[in-house]
Amino acid sequence: MTSSPYKLTATQVLELLKNNAITVEAYARSLLNRIKENDGTVKAWAHLDPDLVLSQARALDQIPKDQRGPLHGLAIGVKDIMDTKDCPRSMALPFTKGISQVPIHLQLQFYEPRGLLFSVRKTTTAEFAVTNSGPETTNPHDPSRTPGGSSCGSAAAVADLQVTLSLGAQSGGSLIRPASYTGVFAMKPTFNTISTAGSKPIAPTFDTLGFFARSVEDLQLLADAFALQDDEPPRDIPLDETSVALIETPMWSSAGPGTVSAMKQAAAILQKNNVKVEKVSLPPEVADVEALGRIQRVITHGEAQVSFLREYRVNKANLAAEIRDMVENTSNNTHKEMTEACGTYSKMRDMVNKLAENYTAILTPSAVDEAPIGLGDMGSPTLNTLWTISASGFHLPVINIPAFVGANDMPIGISLVGPRFRDQQLLRTSKVLSEVLLSHGG
Amino acid sequence: MTSSPYKLTATQVLELLKNNAITVEAYARSLLNRIKENDGTVKAWAHLDPDLVLSQARALDQIPKDQRGPLHGLAIGVKDIMDTKDCPRSMALPFTKGISQVPIHLQLQFYEPRGLLFSVRKTTTAEFAVTNSGPETTNPHDPSRTPGGSSCGSAAAVADLQVTLSLGAQSGGSLIRPASYTGVFAMKPTFNTISTAGSKPIAPTFDTLGFFARSVEDLQLLADAFALQDDEPPRDIPLDETSVALIETPMWSSAGPGTVSAMKQAAAILQKNNVKVEKVSLPPEVADVEALGRIQRVITHGEAQVSFLREYRVNKANLAAEIRDMVENTSNNTHKEMTEACGTYSKMRDMVNKLAENYTAILTPSAVDEAPIGLGDMGSPTLNTLWTISASGFHLPVINIPAFVGANDMPIGISLVGPRFRDQQLLRTSKVLSEVLLSHGG
Repeated sequence: MTSSPYKLTATQVLELLKNNAITVEAYARSLLNRIKENDGTVKAWAHLDPDLVLSQARALDQIPKDQRGPLHGLAIGVKDIMDTKDCPRSMALPFTKGISQVPIHLQLQFYEPRGLLFSVRKTTTAEFAVTNSGPETTNPHDPSRTPGGSSCGSAAAVADLQVTLSLGAQSGGSLIRPASYTGVFAMKPTFNTISTAGSKPIAPTFDTLGFFARSVEDLQLLADAFALQDDEPPRDIPLDETSVALIETPMWSSAGPGTVSAMKQAAAILQKNNVKVEKVSLPPEVADVEALGRIQRVITHGEAQVSFLREYRVNKANLAAEIRDMVENTSNNTHKEMTEACGTYSKMRDMVNKLAENYTAILTPSAVDEAPIGLGDMGSPTLNTLWTISASGFHLPVINIPAFVGANDMPIGISLVGPRFRDQQLLRTSKVLSEVLLSHGG
Repeated sequence: MTSSPYKLTATQVLELLKNNAITVEAYARSLLNRIKENDGTVKAWAHLDPDLVLSQARALDQIPKDQRGPLHGLAIGVKDIMDTKDCPRSMALPFTKGISQVPIHLQLQFYEPRGLLFSVRKTTTAEFAVTNSGPETTNPHDPSRTPGGSSCGSAAAVADLQVTLSLGAQSGGSLIRPASYTGVFAMKPTFNTISTAGSKPIAPTFDTLGFFARSVEDLQLLADAFALQDDEPPRDIPLDETSVALIETPMWSSAGPGTVSAMKQAAAILQKNNVKVEKVSLPPEVADVEALGRIQRVITHGEAQVSFLREYRVNKANLAAEIRDMVENTSNNTHKEMTEACGTYSKMRDMVNKLAENYTAILTPSAVDEAPIGLGDMGSPTLNTLWTISASGFHLPVINIPAFVGANDMPIGISLVGPRFRDQQLLRTSKVLSEVLLSHGG
C-alpha cells in the first residue's frame, strides 16, 4: 500500500504518518510523481514548485510529534482565487498558519471561462488575456471532456489522485457540478460558516467556500478543521428511520438520461434498504424558474458590479464583455429591484429550509448529466444555477456522492442536502447513505 | 495659499494641480512636513515612507495630463486593515491601481482596543501584543483625548491636516464616532455599495467601508470614485421643501450635554431657515434597546467566530480574551438564535428605511458627547452601536456634519441619514444643510 501512497485517502495517510509507516517527504514524492505523470493531460495546477514542496515536507518531518496538528503532513490543493501562506499578508484560511505547520501548500490551476474570475497572483494584461482564452484543465476520466467549472482544477486534481483534498468556491454550482463531472465527493457547507476572507468575491450573498475529497471521512477532516458545528450534536439515524425527500427540481424536464437514471437508481437502492423515499415538490414560489432566474441575475449582477469595480478601473479593455456589462449595469437593474430580489430570495430560502427540516436529507441532482465533450463549456459559476437546489443561493449544506456512471462511462453524482447549519448531521447521514449507494451503484 | 497646500481640501488641490499652480511633489512635501511636525503628538500613521511618497509624487508629475485620472495627485490615508497596491496580491480598492496612477498611498496607523483588529501587515507575535496594548493615536484637538475608534488614525490624520482624504471601516460606529470626536466630515455609504475585499472582515452583515474628508465636496470625490449611484439622479431640494426627521434614538437619556445642545441647535438653525423639522420616534420594535442589543451581539459574535477562526488557530494565546470568547462561543449562542436575529434585524432595517423614505433626511446624534479624556476608551467598533441609527446594522447611508463644539471646546457632530441607496441624494442634501449649519453653528 505504501508503495503508491498517492492513491490513499487523507484519513489513511494520516494513520500511516502517525504510525511512522511513511514520511511526509515520501508522501509528497508520491504525489509529485503522480502529478508529473499526468499533468501534461489534466493540467490542474496553476502554480507548483516541486522543490519547495519537498523542502516543506522535509521540514514537516522534523517537527516533533507532540507539536503536530491534526492534519500534519497532508497536501491540500487551494483554488487560485485564494491567498496562501507564502504571501505574508494572507488573511485567507485557518490552514495557512493555523492548526499546525500542516499542509503542503499546492496552488491549483484555476481557469474561468470568459475571465469571470482570475488569479489574484496574475496581474499583467497578458495574463488577463490568458484567462480569457478559456480553460485548459481536462477531466481525468476523459481528456476530451470538461471537469466542470469553476473549481475545475481542485476537482480534477483530487479525481486524478494528484492530491487528497482541495478547496474550492461556489457562487452558483462551482463545487457540486465539477464534483459530479469528475466523480469525487464534495461539500458545500452552510453559507457563512467558513470565512471567505482572502478569496476573490463575486456575489457575497452567494459566495461559499467548500472542499473536494475522495471519501466522506476526508470531508469530515476539513469540516472539523473549519470548525463547522451544529446546534445539536449529530446522531446515527438507522436506515429504517431515515427519510429522504426526492426533489427533481423545477427543471427536471431538461435532465439528461444519465442523471435521470442515477436519481432513479438512488431512490430504488435507498428504498430497498428500508429508507423512506418521498417524492416532494418545491413550493410554487421557488419552483417558478423564470422568476428565480431573474432574481438570481439581479443579485449576482448587482453584487458583481461592486466586486469587479476595481478590475474594471484597472483594465477595463481586457475584461470579458460579460463582466464589463455587469459593472456598467447595461441591464439597467435598479437598487429597488435588487432590494426586492434579496427579500424574495430570503423568503424562498426559509421555505426550502423548512422543507429540509422535515426530512433526514433531500436527494437532488448534482448536474444535468455526464460531463459534456469539449473544454469550453465548464458552466458559469453564477449562471445556470437554477437547475438544482444544491445551488449556493439557498445557503443549504450540500454533499455530492459520486455513486453512478453514465452511458459514456463518465461519473454522475447525486446531492444530499440538509437544513442550514446541520452540516455535521449531513456528513453523518452522507456517510451512511453513500456506503449504501456505492455498494449498489455504478 | 499654495505656501501651505496641506491646509487645502482635495477639491482645491485638484484645481491647483490642473492649473499647474502646484506640483504633486510640492503638495506631497507640504503634507510630509505637516506630518513630521505633528506626528510625535497625533501618531496617526502605522506605516509611512516619506522617500517612497516623494518618489511616487515625482513619478506622478511626469505623467502627461491626458493620461491622468480624476483624482491624480491626491493623497489618501488607508486604514491599516486594507491591502494596498504595494502588495502585488492586493484586491482591495479601485484606487490601488484604478482610476489612474492616482493616490500617493499612505498607510494610516490603526490601533484597536483589545486587539479586535490588527494590521494585516503585522504577522509576528510581538506585534499582536503591541496592538493589544491599546491605542496611541491622539485627538488633534486635545492630545489627552481619544480620536475615537476604530478608524482613529484615518480620522485624526484628516482632522490634523496631515492628509485630505482617508478610508475607514465601520462595523458598528467606527466611522461616524471618530468623525464626530475629531471634527471632520465622514460618509458611511449604504451597505454593500463598496466592496470590502482586501479589508479584514469582522461581521460581514455589518462591515461597511467609508471615508473621511474636510468638506462634502471631498466626500463627493470619493463617492464618485467608488461609483455610488442612486436609482434616480439626485436633485436640489429648496430649503422650504426640505423635511427633516429628528430622531433622538431610544438611548437619548444617556446623551451628554454637548450632544443634547448640538441637536437642539441643529433643529433650531434648520427651522430658522425654513426647513421643516419633525420629531419622530422609531417604531417600538426598533426602539427596544435591550432586544436590539441582544440581536446585535448574537450576529456580531456569530460572524466574528467565523472571521477570527484563522487568527485563533494561529495564535490563540495572544488574542484578546473578548475575541477568544467569540471564537469559542462562550455565550453559547446557537445557529437558531443567529438565524432568527438576522431575520429580525432585516425586518427592522426595512422599517427604518421606510421611515427614512418619508423625509429628505433624518437628523440624529453622531456620538454620545465630546471625545472623552484618555486614550483607552475609543469605543468598540462592534459594541455600543445601538446609540444611534447611524450604526452600520441599519445599512443606511450616513454623513457626519462637524458643525458644533462642546463645553470643552471639542468638536461635536450631528448625523444626516438617508434611505438605502440614496447616497448621492444624501450628499446633495448634506451639502446644502451643512452650509446652513456651519454658518450658524459653533
